[in-house]
This record gives sequence, C-alpha cells and structure tokens, in this order.
Amino acid sequence: MGSFKGHALPGAFFIIMGFWWCTKSILKYVYKKQTRTCYLSSKTLLRRAEIWEGVVSVFMAVTGMAGEQFISGGPYLALYKDGQWYQLLEWHHTTMYFFFGLQGVVHILCFSTNLVPTSLSKLMLSNAIFVESFIFYNHTHGREMLDDFMHQLLAFTAILSGLVTFMEFLTKNNVLLEFLRSTLIILQGTWFWQIGYVLYPPSGNPTWNLTDIKNKMFLTMCFSWHYAAIYIIIGLNYAFITWLVKSRLRKVCTSEVGLLKNAECEHESEEEV
Amino acid sequence: MGSFKGHALPGAFFIIMGFWWCTKSILKYVYKKQTRTCYLSSKTLLRRAEIWEGVVSVFMAVTGMAGEQFISGGPYLALYKDGQWYQLLEWHHTTMYFFFGLQGVVHILCFSTNLVPTSLSKLMLSNAIFVESFIFYNHTHGREMLDDFMHQLLAFTAILSGLVTFMEFLTKNNVLLEFLRSTLIILQGTWFWQIGYVLYPPSGNPTWNLTDIKNKMFLTMCFSWHYAAIYIIIGLNYAFITWLVKSRLRKVCTSEVGLLKNAECEHESEEEV
Amino acid sequence: MGSFKGHALPGAFFIIMGFWWCTKSILKYVYKKQTRTCYLSSKTLLRRAEIWEGVVSVFMAVTGMAGEQFISGGPYLALYKDGQWYQLLEWHHTTMYFFFGLQGVVHILCFSTNLVPTSLSKLMLSNAIFVESFIFYNHTHGREMLDDFMHQLLAFTAILSGLVTFMEFLTKNNVLLEFLRSTLIILQGTWFWQIGYVLYPPSGNPTWNLTDIKNKMFLTMCFSWHYAAIYIIIGLNYAFITWLVKSRLRKVCTSEVGLLKNAECEHESEEEV
Amino acid sequence: MGSFKGHALPGAFFIIMGFWWCTKSILKYVYKKQTRTCYLSSKTLLRRAEIWEGVVSVFMAVTGMAGEQFISGGPYLALYKDGQWYQLLEWHHTTMYFFFGLQGVVHILCFSTNLVPTSLSKLMLSNAIFVESFIFYNHTHGREMLDDFMHQLLAFTAILSGLVTFMEFLTKNNVLLEFLRSTLIILQGTWFWQIGYVLYPPSGNPTWNLTDIKNKMFLTMCFSWHYAAIYIIIGLNYAFITWLVKSRLRKVCTSEVGLLKNAECEHESEEEV
Repeated sequence: MGSFKGHALPGAFFIIMGFWWCTKSILKYVYKKQTRTCYLSSKTLLRRAEIWEGVVSVFMAVTGMAGEQFISGGPYLALYKDGQWYQLLEWHHTTMYFFFGLQGVVHILCFSTNLVPTSLSKLMLSNAIFVESFIFYNHTHGREMLDDFMHQLLAFTAILSGLVTFMEFLTKNNVLLEFLRSTLIILQGTWFWQIGYVLYPPSGNPTWNLTDIKNKMFLTMCFSWHYAAIYIIIGLNYAFITWLVKSRLRKVCTSEVGLLKNAECEHESEEEV
Repeated sequence: MGSFKGHALPGAFFIIMGFWWCTKSILKYVYKKQTRTCYLSSKTLLRRAEIWEGVVSVFMAVTGMAGEQFISGGPYLALYKDGQWYQLLEWHHTTMYFFFGLQGVVHILCFSTNLVPTSLSKLMLSNAIFVESFIFYNHTHGREMLDDFMHQLLAFTAILSGLVTFMEFLTKNNVLLEFLRSTLIILQGTWFWQIGYVLYPPSGNPTWNLTDIKNKMFLTMCFSWHYAAIYIIIGLNYAFITWLVKSRLRKVCTSEVGLLKNAECEHESEEEV
Repeated sequence: MGSFKGHALPGAFFIIMGFWWCTKSILKYVYKKQTRTCYLSSKTLLRRAEIWEGVVSVFMAVTGMAGEQFISGGPYLALYKDGQWYQLLEWHHTTMYFFFGLQGVVHILCFSTNLVPTSLSKLMLSNAIFVESFIFYNHTHGREMLDDFMHQLLAFTAILSGLVTFMEFLTKNNVLLEFLRSTLIILQGTWFWQIGYVLYPPSGNPTWNLTDIKNKMFLTMCFSWHYAAIYIIIGLNYAFITWLVKSRLRKVCTSEVGLLKNAECEHESEEEV
Repeated sequence: MGSFKGHALPGAFFIIMGFWWCTKSILKYVYKKQTRTCYLSSKTLLRRAEIWEGVVSVFMAVTGMAGEQFISGGPYLALYKDGQWYQLLEWHHTTMYFFFGLQGVVHILCFSTNLVPTSLSKLMLSNAIFVESFIFYNHTHGREMLDDFMHQLLAFTAILSGLVTFMEFLTKNNVLLEFLRSTLIILQGTWFWQIGYVLYPPSGNPTWNLTDIKNKMFLTMCFSWHYAAIYIIIGLNYAFITWLVKSRLRKVCTSEVGLLKNAECEHESEEEV
C-alpha cells in the first residue's frame, strides 16, 4: 500500500460504495414521496439490489486482501519471518479489508434469508468502520508530521462515519442519516486519493515537505473543501434523480394508470435503477 | 481578521442569528401554548420568515467572505504565491463563511420547495458548525498561550453547539434544545468580541499579557459570566414576549372573536414579529 | 475555600441535595406503583415540595457565595486590585455557586407558574453542573500531582452527572436516571469531604505526601469505594421507604377506604415525606 | 494477579458470562420469532434462569475476591502496613470483583421480587463495567510500553461495553445491542488470556520484548482478529440454535399441538436451554 495505487484502490472502493448508498437513499426517499403504486415491486427490486451490494462488497474486500498480500514485495501470507513480524502494515490493511468482507457476507444473509434481523448489517458495517479507525489510529507510529496528520484525519472521518452508522442502526429509517453516512464514506474515499497525491505524487512531482506547518494548515482547509464538494455533487445528484423519477412517473403512472400492471411497473423501475 | 473588526464582524453575525433564533423559538412556543385560532396564518408567516432567514444567512456569509478576501492586505483569491501557501488564515475564515453560506442556500430550498426534507437545514447547520470547530481546532499553531486558549474555547463552544444542533436534528420539536442552541451561538458571538478586546484592544489600551496564567484563570470565569448574562437576557426576552403576546391576544382574539377574519389575524401577527 | 471547612460546606450541600433527590425519586416511584387513591393530593404536595427545593437551592447558593466573598481574607467583591486579578480561586467558587443559585430561581419559576416548560429546570441543572466541571477543569494549574488528580476526579464526576442530567432532560420520567444522578451528586459531595481530609487534615494529622504515586492509586480505589457505599446506603433507603409506604398504605387505604377524605389523605402523606 | 492464572481466571469468567448472555439473547429472539404457543412457560423459565445467572455472578465475584486476597503472597485483607499502602494492585482487583458481585445481588433481587425495576440490573452492570475501566485506566502507572498498551485496550473495551450496556438500559429490548454487549464482554475475556500469554508465557517461553513497537502493531491487529473470531463463533452458535429450535418446535408444536399441555411444554423448553 505504500504507493499511489495502494491508496487509490481503497479510495475508489469507498467512493463507489458511498455514491451507491447515497443514490439508493435518494431513490428510496423520492419514490416513497412521489408514488404509492409501484411500492411493492420496488421493494422486491430493492431486495435484489441489496444482495448485489453485498456481493460487490465481498468482491471488493477479496480484491483488496489479495492485492495487499500477493502484490510483488507483499507478505504472501507470511506473518512471522526471520525472528520478527513481517510486513505488519500490509497485514493491517488485510485485516481492515477482512472486516468489510465480513460485513458483505452478513449483508447477503440479511437480505436473502429471514432468519437474521436486517439491522445486523448496519451493526456489522459500523463495526467494520470502527475497526478500520482503530487500526488507523495505531498505524502511523514514528512517521512524519504531515503523513501522521493525514492518516489521523482518515481515522477521524472513519470514527464519525462509524458513529453515524451506529446511530442509523439505533434510529431506523432516517433518510438524512443515510445521506450523512454516504458523504462521510465518500469523504474517506477522496481523502485516500488526497493522501496518495501528497505522499506519492503520481505525475513525478517532488513530494511535499512533510514537516511544514503551512502544508498542515492547507490540508485542514482542503479536507473541508473535499467535504463541501461532496455535498454539492450529492445535491446535483439529488436534483437529477428527483427530476428523472418525476418525469418518468408522470409518463407511466398518470396516463396509463388504468392499463398498468404490477409486472410492467417492476420492469420500469428496474430500468431506472 | 487579525484585527478588532475582523473579530467583531463574525461576533455580530453570531449574536444576531442567535438572538433571532431564540426569539423565533419563544414566539413559536408561546403562540402554540396561548392560542389555536391564528395557527395556520402564523404558519405561512413563519415560512416566509424562514426564507428571509436563509437570505440573511447567505448575505452574511458573502459579506464575510468578501471581507476576508478583498480587504486591504487580503489574499485577493490568491492561494499559492511565490512558491508557498499565501495567507492561509484568511482562507480558513473564508472556508468557514462558505459553509454557513451553503447552509443558508439549503435553508431557502427547504422552506421554498417541498422536494427537500426540512430537517436537512438543521443537518447542514450542524455540519457548518462542526467544520468551523474543526478548522478553529487546527488554526492556532504556535501562538501565545492565552490566544490559543481563547480560540480553543471558541472551538469548544462550536463543538457543543454543533452537538446540540445535531440532537435537534434527531429529536424534532424540542423547544428547549432550540433555546440551548441559541444560547451557545450567542456565546460564540460574545466570545468573538471578548477575543477582539483581549488581543486587539480597540481603545488603544496596552494588550494583555498573553503568557500570564492569572489571565487564563480570569478568562475561564469570564466565559462563564458571558453565559450567565446570556441566560438572563434571554430570560427577560422570554418574559417580554410572553407579556406582549398575551396582552395582544386578549385584545384581538377574545373581544372580537366573532368579527375576526383570517386575513386580519395574519396582518396582526405580522406586526408582532 | 483553601481549608477543610471550605470543602466541607459544598460537600454537605451536594450530599443533602443528592439524598433529597434520591428520596423524592423513590417516593414517587413507590407511590406510583402501590396506590392510585391518593395520587392527586400527593401531586399538589409534590409541587409544594419542589418549590421548597428551589428555595433551599437558592439559600445554599447565597450562603456559599457569601462565605467565599466575605470570609476573613476573602476578596470582599474586589476583582482587580493593585494592578492584578485578586483572589481568582474564590471568584471561581463564587461563579459556580451563582449558577446553582440561578438553577434554584428557575426551579421555583417552573413549579410556581405555568409559563415556563418544566424541564427547563433540568436543563439549567445540567448547565450549572457543566459550568462547575468546566471551571474545575481549568482550576488546578500548577498544583501538586495528588491535589490535581483529586480535583480532576471531581470534574470527571461533575461531567458524568451533567451528562446524566442532560439525558434526563431528553428522556423524561426515567426513574433510574434520577437515581443515577443522585448517586453521582452524592459522590461529588463525599469526594469534597475526602479532598478536605487529604489536603487539610482536620485532626491535626500531617498532610499526605502529594507526590506519591501509591497515594494516587489508593485514592482511585477509594473513589470506587465511596461509590459502592453510596449505592448500598441508597439501597437501604429504598428498602426502608418501600416498607414505610406499604405498611402505612395498608393501614390507611385498605381498612378505612370508605371514610377516607382527600384532605386527610394529603395530611397523611405530608407526614410521610 | 501478576501471573498467568491471575489473568486466566477473570478471562474465563468474562468468556463464560458473555457466551451465556449471547446464547440467552439468541434463544429469546428465535423463540419470539418462531412460536407463540410456549411463550408464557418459557417466561417463568427465563426468570429462573436469570436468578441462577445472578447466583453464578455472585459466586464468581466471591471466588475472584478470595483469590486476590488469600492467595499466597496476597494482602490477607491488610490495606495499610508498615507505614505505607500494601499491595494496592490486588486491592484494585478486589474492588472490581466487588462491583460485579454487587451487580449479581441486584440481579437476583430484580428477578425474584417485584419491588425493584428490572432494568436496575442493567444499570448496575454498566456501573460495574465503568468502574472496572476507570480502575484499569489508573492502574498501569510506570509500566513498560506493551504492558501499558494491552491494559489500555482492556480499559477501552470495558468503556465500550459499558456504553453499550448503558444504551441497552435506555432503549429496552434491542436484541442486537445484547449481541454487541456479549461480543465485547467475550473480547475482554479473550484479551485477558492474550495478556496472560504475552506477559507471563505459560509454556516457559521467553517473555515478549515489551518495548518493541512492532509487537504493539501486531497486538493492535491481534485485537481485531480476536473480535473477528468472536463474531464468527457467535454466528455459528446462532445458526446452531436456530436449527435446534426449529427442528424441535416442528416435532413438538406442529404434530402434537392438540395434546400439548403447558406443563409438558415447559418441560421441553427446559431441556433445550
């Protein structure tokens, strides 16, 4: 992971998941507000989407674990070698990926069987995020000031998103908490990219001065700018989805309301997602 | 911002907003308790007031941003100059103002359209306050002890008011939480003035000794006194508004209850606000 | 306050209030569970008791403030003298007492008029306790290790009781939270006495070694023992009150249920409290 | 306690209790979901089980206290000897056990009488855990880095499980919070064993290098692995119990539903637990 790619990969995972979660929340909210006709069909559809989400989670986690272990120069599953711990940082990353993979498995179980309470998935997600922040917090011993600071911000964002996920778990069905979680997850993702850019500049630029306090003050602000940008992008996404759903529903549900069958409706919604 | 005026401006903004919020809460509470006649009319009125509140927020934020950027000696939108970051403190302040401006825009959207959930405004407000406290927390590197302490108290108050706003977002319609938020916002405002007085005495007095522990102990207490004074002033405000609403309602709603029309009632309440 | 008496006075205040609160909660709980006959009368009685509680609070606060200011060697209301702050520690204590006095005034207003929401009193109480802990936290600059540690434990207990009071404010009518608050308030009181015994031994014993780590470890444990003792005493109090209410109710409400008048019943309950 | 056995004993206690709590929660959840026939009988059974749980708690606490005090080289109830505190670490442990014993007594009272509110037991449990974490936090003065780190992780886990227990106390009947608490309690137990293995290797291996940062980084990860393993074991336990209850209920409740008597049903469920 000590490279640009090693930070870009988890960053991309977080951005994709965050964006998907936020889109899902918006769709659920807008549908619930606009229509009551297609409710049941969209529910079975949602269930299928959730299972796919779990599968993608597991796939991402396995990719990440394999990448950490079997990249050239990686530990190749060796934990103890020549009388000392071997490549512990890579093992740390593997552990983090593992917990997200566990969450994926539980997510699939929650939505494919009736045996497990659904909110267990939320609990596992907050667990995975908390474990991530715990490991990041104990991850940066003896590094340069700026490197340390950026990873502490990551741990900080992770703790916040873990707390928000836990609150979601306690107070079910608060759509804005889901938004908030999505923004924090995307923020983690973009911050991974930022760390990559600062510590391992991809274009061959010289690395930043890691002991300059001015850089720290800039990155403090930069962190806030990431957050502001995420809010604006999600806002545009919200506006776009609202417009899409509205215009489509008017066509389908108003003019052909007599002819509409459940099956067709499900077909329609499938295209929209 | 490194001047008395630079602290007095945001201080005044916070005091005005805090006082308006607290007055709004009191009016809503007293009306709800005293009368049921004029309820609907005051609701449309409230909606209009909320939109104006958003407009004023945006105006304040734009003023603040412009002031930070285009004051003589300001960065004039230049972030990087001569091979290093340029005037980062002013950029920090600009960022804080930006988030409050974003909140204002969302507030207008929440109360002018039906598309966005209303409590999004609360969430954005708590976000803006948390970003403010985050930036303040990383803002005072390498300053004198007393300067640092006063800004940490600001960050502390901001965190508390952010938490209270977040609680409001979760538990809707608790009037006392709105009071509490108002008091903490006003406290931030008056504390900005106090910082201005201590660091840049306006009357030409000598500056305080920034390394004297006695000054720190006095300011600890002074902070509490600000808070006590705010409580007492809000208490008087509460008593005044209760008296006003009661005396007016007795005149209007009891004696002329047969003649009263909705339109008139709205007219009346408009004057009161 | 730099004496045994100066710590014994607030300690006694906290113990008295904590014990009264816990007795009140137990009585309310036991009555609610055992009987429905005398309910209304005990409610007006409770209201009167609450007002008296407020009066006693104000009295305690005024006593405390006067004691801090006008004791021989006190500041006599002088804050700034000979070019520097004068007796700031005494002023700190005065400020703390003031907030508890403010709470007392609000408590009287809450239960004597209908204009103020009742839970405002809880909010003011948590405010007063938070201000106390804030001041204690910034109170012990440059003292010996053990002195500092004991006052930090006081601040810690105060923060916990402030949090519990705030939770009570949010989730109304949870009798066990009231118990919890009482125990933490009594713990503060007994810990004040402990501080007095350690720093200013009343019997003329030599003072403790304030830099010995063993003393710190003992006091850590001692703090827990205080808490255990408080729980046991409150448990005995609970058992005693339950027995008292039960035996009295059997006499009054069962055998003479036909003759019983409201006035008599109130008279009875008055004696019990 | 400065030995492998001294860590294995409380570790075993925590693992047993955690496992029992998690099994109890699963049983309650699965029963509630699968059947409504035997509800009442399982309730009286549950009551009896709770009382036994309390008895076992008290027994464990007494064993622990006796072990700490009367082991060869223990303090034998002497707290102050030869002018200084005597064996404070053992006294610390005794205090922790005492609070868990107190919780056991309250648990018995809660489920054997109607006089005490049931959730008092939860409150006492969170108290006991908080006291434990408080003492652990002030327990490791002047030890080696790794020793200190491992005990701080213990205090950290204890604080988390205390918080979760407190949340359970506030929001009754959330089965997943009960799971979460169980996992954290088991994590404490296994971590006690880990501490024992690291500090006092039982097989005569050389002790670990307590100042090596690599060991710290490994133990950070190891802590997460413990947690993952606990989740997987509890998951298997969940699957096993679900299967058991389902297969048994099908036999009993479906085929012989006409013949079934309450007494028999209770008998059946007794075997299952």
